[in-house]
Amino acid sequence: MSEFKTLRGMRDLLPENAKMMIYIEDTARKVARLYGYKEIITPVVESYELLAAKAGDEVRSRMFAFKDLGGRDVALRPEFTASVARLVATTLRNEPKPFRIFCMGSAYRYDEPQRGRYREFWQSDYELIGTNRPEADAEILMLTTRLMQSAGLEKFAIKVGHVGILRGTLTQEKISEKEQNAIMQLMDKKEYDDAIKLVEHAGASEKCLTTLHQLVECRGSDIFEVVKRMKELVKDYEKSMAATENLREILELIAASGCKINVSVDAGIARGLEYYTGMVFEVFVPDLDIALGGGGRYDRLVELFGGEPTPAVGVAHGIDRIMLGMQSQKTAPKMEKAKTVFVFPIKDEQRAEAVKIAQMLRDAGILVEVEVMGRRMTKALEDADRRKLDYAIIVGERELKQESVVIRDLAKRQQSTVKIEQMVDQIKG
Amino acid sequence: MSEFKTLRGMRDLLPENAKMMIYIEDTARKVARLYGYKEIITPVVESYELLAAKAGDEVRSRMFAFKDLGGRDVALRPEFTASVARLVATTLRNEPKPFRIFCMGSAYRYDEPQRGRYREFWQSDYELIGTNRPEADAEILMLTTRLMQSAGLEKFAIKVGHVGILRGTLTQEKISEKEQNAIMQLMDKKEYDDAIKLVEHAGASEKCLTTLHQLVECRGSDIFEVVKRMKELVKDYEKSMAATENLREILELIAASGCKINVSVDAGIARGLEYYTGMVFEVFVPDLDIALGGGGRYDRLVELFGGEPTPAVGVAHGIDRIMLGMQSQKTAPKMEKAKTVFVFPIKDEQRAEAVKIAQMLRDAGILVEVEVMGRRMTKALEDADRRKLDYAIIVGERELKQESVVIRDLAKRQQSTVKIEQMVDQIKG
Repeated sequence: MSEFKTLRGMRDLLPENAKMMIYIEDTARKVARLYGYKEIITPVVESYELLAAKAGDEVRSRMFAFKDLGGRDVALRPEFTASVARLVATTLRNEPKPFRIFCMGSAYRYDEPQRGRYREFWQSDYELIGTNRPEADAEILMLTTRLMQSAGLEKFAIKVGHVGILRGTLTQEKISEKEQNAIMQLMDKKEYDDAIKLVEHAGASEKCLTTLHQLVECRGSDIFEVVKRMKELVKDYEKSMAATENLREILELIAASGCKINVSVDAGIARGLEYYTGMVFEVFVPDLDIALGGGGRYDRLVELFGGEPTPAVGVAHGIDRIMLGMQSQKTAPKMEKAKTVFVFPIKDEQRAEAVKIAQMLRDAGILVEVEVMGRRMTKALEDADRRKLDYAIIVGERELKQESVVIRDLAKRQQSTVKIEQMVDQIKG
Repeated sequence: MSEFKTLRGMRDLLPENAKMMIYIEDTARKVARLYGYKEIITPVVESYELLAAKAGDEVRSRMFAFKDLGGRDVALRPEFTASVARLVATTLRNEPKPFRIFCMGSAYRYDEPQRGRYREFWQSDYELIGTNRPEADAEILMLTTRLMQSAGLEKFAIKVGHVGILRGTLTQEKISEKEQNAIMQLMDKKEYDDAIKLVEHAGASEKCLTTLHQLVECRGSDIFEVVKRMKELVKDYEKSMAATENLREILELIAASGCKINVSVDAGIARGLEYYTGMVFEVFVPDLDIALGGGGRYDRLVELFGGEPTPAVGVAHGIDRIMLGMQSQKTAPKMEKAKTVFVFPIKDEQRAEAVKIAQMLRDAGILVEVEVMGRRMTKALEDADRRKLDYAIIVGERELKQESVVIRDLAKRQQSTVKIEQMVDQIKG
């Protein structure tokens, strides 16, 4: 046995899973086009400083970081938004707003591996740049819904919150941004008690603590009811009120557009990344603990990276997590099944002719495997049958003299001699 | 201006180039399917030891290698074959032979950046596992030809050689494998004089040196003539003779199959990677110094990784290099242009209705951007026009009352009022 294997938390995807991944990628790309998102490609390796800037402690501590051969501090991207914000702050800084960007690829985090959580994972990422209006947030939520539906997921739910609600309260209580970040990290892990202890430690008022205790419990799918309750809770915190109103507007817009989206509101959603400034959300399916996707508004990241102040909102979907979701909901990708043919030369003398025939079939869009082992016919046909190919074309000296080949239907176990010029039509049916 | 940028040798691909990359990836995938290659996905990060084992000094010294957070020696893949061979030696060790594998993605080398040579690059990789017969080598060469043609490249040439010719001679002269590797590295860089000096230093006979001097000059597109000359040169070296005969058989098979492939023979082709054991080749276009693709036979790599002895042959194509080739030959990807629509609500009160209309259009497969800036109509339409969208749909209170919208042809500058139920047909034409 080989001593070599994949690294812990890394995987090989064999044909069945790889096919499903490619299918989801295609779907993500189609959805991007439907919504006017243009695809770009950014590097997997970026400067550590860029990727770390607003990643949050949790993600930052789990980055694949190292020095390259030139002594630079670099890292593998743990997500896409930092790279997109860099691009918006530099190359695309003069691009008229709004613009929509899409990217897709692998990302890396040194997490403890578990179901749906790997050290290499794939995301499709959509960013709407240049507007702070609620219709932009609504678009990202609706696009997310369309992607999940297009992938064939029937059961999924979106939890929506707004970091401005918690941060607004903390800011009014004069809690520093650094302390806020630590508090939000705990909130993200649902460690509400520890989070609120930290708020207490930072010197917040008794009223604030009570408000927070109630806020983090404030959730449900009766969304406008929940938002109303939130508003009552934060009525003394001006910025929190504005955030709640912003959230209400986004949800109102979606409801009014008639888009059927299974959404619940959860004031406690914080997201692990520090760059969020507004609406945040996560997508869940029944059988998985982890989110299939998540995103939100980040109005200050581009500016932080040296660009003009540029409001933005985006979402990243876990391609491999969507695959898990599809597998647990037994959703098969809708893919056309093309005809597959095995071409077999009876003797070595017919090898070149077999290749010629294979090329003719491929020119007609038929999927062809040619014999390359020099096997006996029985063995080769057994193998083709086992691998569920549709037809075998047997190339023999006698038939070739009559410009013919034998076509064998491998499932029906029937065969007939056919003129080469009629071969393609015969197979395409 | 931002202090952040891409690392040296890494790039962002903006929409126009990204679109071309995706087009070539799609093409590579179609070709894989036509030839029965099944797609798999392997990790970008692998154990250093695996990737370094047979990479050759040149590639090995330029790997992005580092220690991960668990203290493991890891690296970013500089190519795909090592990962595929690992898989064949482990997970796929009981898979009946032959089987065909395809993978695609980014790879990394710390090279000095130049046109077509970047530190992050993309490859499509095809491996035919389990057979040492010449029809397998021929298949890889023909598949390569089809990929270049499918990408629309009209001018390209394949240089074919066989490492067995040089190595056969060196082995018979009792030159160690380690010394051979160093010699082949120099050969790969076309530093023939230095290479032959190394052969001399290793104690080869005078006759051997003469033979090598003539061999490395032995090339041309009159392929069977060149092969004949080679045979005369190496007639006293048994293994070199066998290698030359193997090369002749491969070329003979391609010629006899009638496949039009622009091939020349070059005995000096060595490839930088140490794992090759047989036929090797590289693909070139007129205006680029670098190869667009390359590959060859590696019959001992799987065994070296602890698997059963498994002959194999494969090729990697540089996706981004094919793009450069297409750009220099002014080849435009053949892509259908879908209709694009901009949906504009006259007032905020029509925002939800605008979103609803956008969703209807997307359901019909039409590409839609919705206004998300709250701009005035003139400004928004100017922007849609500048971005070359086909139509604008203007959603106003008055028209909505009659279940209608205004459709404006942005190129023709004509507009008309249309019932919403007829909108999709109108746009699809």
